[in-house]
Amino acid sequence: MYTITELQKLINEELKVRSTELKKTNPVDLYSPVNYSLDMGGKRLRPVLVLLSYNMFSETVREALPAAIAIEVFHNFTLLHDDIMDNADVRRNRPTVHKKFSENSAILSGDVMAFIAYRYLYECKAEQLNEVCNLFTNTAIEVCEGQQYDMEFENRMDVTEEEYLEMIRLKTAVLLACSLKSGALLVNADKKITGQLYDFGINLGLAFQLQDDLLDSFGDPDSFGKKIGGDILANKKTFLSINALQQATGETKNELLNWFSNTELNPEEKIKSVLEIYKKLNIRSFTEQKIELYFNKCNQILDEIEIDYERKSQLKEISKLMLKRVS
Amino acid sequence: MYTITELQKLINEELKVRSTELKKTNPVDLYSPVNYSLDMGGKRLRPVLVLLSYNMFSETVREALPAAIAIEVFHNFTLLHDDIMDNADVRRNRPTVHKKFSENSAILSGDVMAFIAYRYLYECKAEQLNEVCNLFTNTAIEVCEGQQYDMEFENRMDVTEEEYLEMIRLKTAVLLACSLKSGALLVNADKKITGQLYDFGINLGLAFQLQDDLLDSFGDPDSFGKKIGGDILANKKTFLSINALQQATGETKNELLNWFSNTELNPEEKIKSVLEIYKKLNIRSFTEQKIELYFNKCNQILDEIEIDYERKSQLKEISKLMLKRVS
Repeated sequence: MYTITELQKLINEELKVRSTELKKTNPVDLYSPVNYSLDMGGKRLRPVLVLLSYNMFSETVREALPAAIAIEVFHNFTLLHDDIMDNADVRRNRPTVHKKFSENSAILSGDVMAFIAYRYLYECKAEQLNEVCNLFTNTAIEVCEGQQYDMEFENRMDVTEEEYLEMIRLKTAVLLACSLKSGALLVNADKKITGQLYDFGINLGLAFQLQDDLLDSFGDPDSFGKKIGGDILANKKTFLSINALQQATGETKNELLNWFSNTELNPEEKIKSVLEIYKKLNIRSFTEQKIELYFNKCNQILDEIEIDYERKSQLKEISKLMLKRVS
Repeated sequence: MYTITELQKLINEELKVRSTELKKTNPVDLYSPVNYSLDMGGKRLRPVLVLLSYNMFSETVREALPAAIAIEVFHNFTLLHDDIMDNADVRRNRPTVHKKFSENSAILSGDVMAFIAYRYLYECKAEQLNEVCNLFTNTAIEVCEGQQYDMEFENRMDVTEEEYLEMIRLKTAVLLACSLKSGALLVNADKKITGQLYDFGINLGLAFQLQDDLLDSFGDPDSFGKKIGGDILANKKTFLSINALQQATGETKNELLNWFSNTELNPEEKIKSVLEIYKKLNIRSFTEQKIELYFNKCNQILDEIEIDYERKSQLKEISKLMLKRVS
């Protein structure tokens, strides 16, 4: 079996090959933002999940590489368009595509990436390829729905936890679930197991997003790679802010509403004050419990999958890595 | 066999059913721009071509309806994004999606339409569905490439006729060709005929776009539905402007370059002066000859298709309609 690092290497090598092809394709200015975006690096989580789940059943993981790359290209397409919509200037310490090139470039090069994803997907030879394509299409539609909810939540102060969880299920979790299920479908795994892997992915995705929400407020600035409090400054709805708004009463609630309805306030002071309210309301441990709950669900599903224990070890490993667990 | 009007009716009825479904889908604000765009009407040329070519071989055209609608949805997706990129405020006498809703809406609702197109495509039951999906994907990529060239040409004065024809092949013709070939693939027509229909579509598309270029300068304002001279005002590269720039010499060339490098000039005077130069250079008849050439190629290909003459009649009919031919 492949280790996660080996799979990442395989993916980055394949991305390099694809990128060299795209660099030779005309019109050059359509494809250079595509390359710029794919060159940005990152953990390649989604393609790793495709290969990991394929590797549970077979050692010929290269067969699933085109689909793995397809999902990474799709993911980067969503980043290009989301960054325009969210007016984000920086991603992974580099200017976003619409800043580096232009908004029109980010729209059109994003569009072409969506179709390149399908082109790569169709390269796979698999009995259940049609099912993979269907799953991918439904997932893509859900991701758009998730982004729409995320944007709508910006202007709302009454988002419930349930609504928030549904939004992150659509925006984040379904693509992880789709990656895992696709890998298994490509190796022709049976329906029960592909379903279980999908559920595992949903719970992993929910835990992963809540972890991300948590780190934005309580992470170690060095290992987090971003400034602490970015979500707070942007008045973003997160698991933390939604629960704080729901649990706060009286003066604290007014204070919180005030912080979250302004963008013109002193940034340092805003972050400090909101974090103090989070501490007072025990938001951190509340969030950690929820992450724990989804993590446990992941483990439970994994235990139920009827396959040799050691073949599930890499999936266990990546869920720990993604949720920054030591044990 | 179905008449073109009957096929249009079939398509509009099916669009209505789909639109009713989409209206009930959440998030409502993601799907209402989709409906707005599909409700705008139009001649439904591309889906008509899908059904027409299917109908050459079989009367069960309803089988091809999902693919026909898919291509119409895809076409409207490109309009949403092109209108942002081209900063167009009005389409078919109504505000464009990014004006009526917002730019973010036009981006995201456009995105979801690209994936809805695939969802509809996968509804078709056909032996060669995989080939249809591949063709559709490659076509979509080419359409993006065409749009990229179109944007790049805006800032160039040295676009050659060859470059221009390649741009409109990508931006316009391949989708007509894809529509025709898809219809035939769905009814499992043989390779030779699907290839011929594709070539017919390319030539039809080129003629159609040149006709559109011509009408913008020399059309009857009432039947054209747009103001005459829009392309001239916007300094758009068209078959007319490119050939005028290539054929003009001396003072005329300087005059033309001057008109085409400004946007601040008196609109009436600009249109009048450029049209006069076109007339002096015989651009109209030069363009008409080129249209004639592609139209004749269409007819030639159609004659070569080995199928009963009457089964080709509707295809002959639509090419005449599209090119506004009386005989």
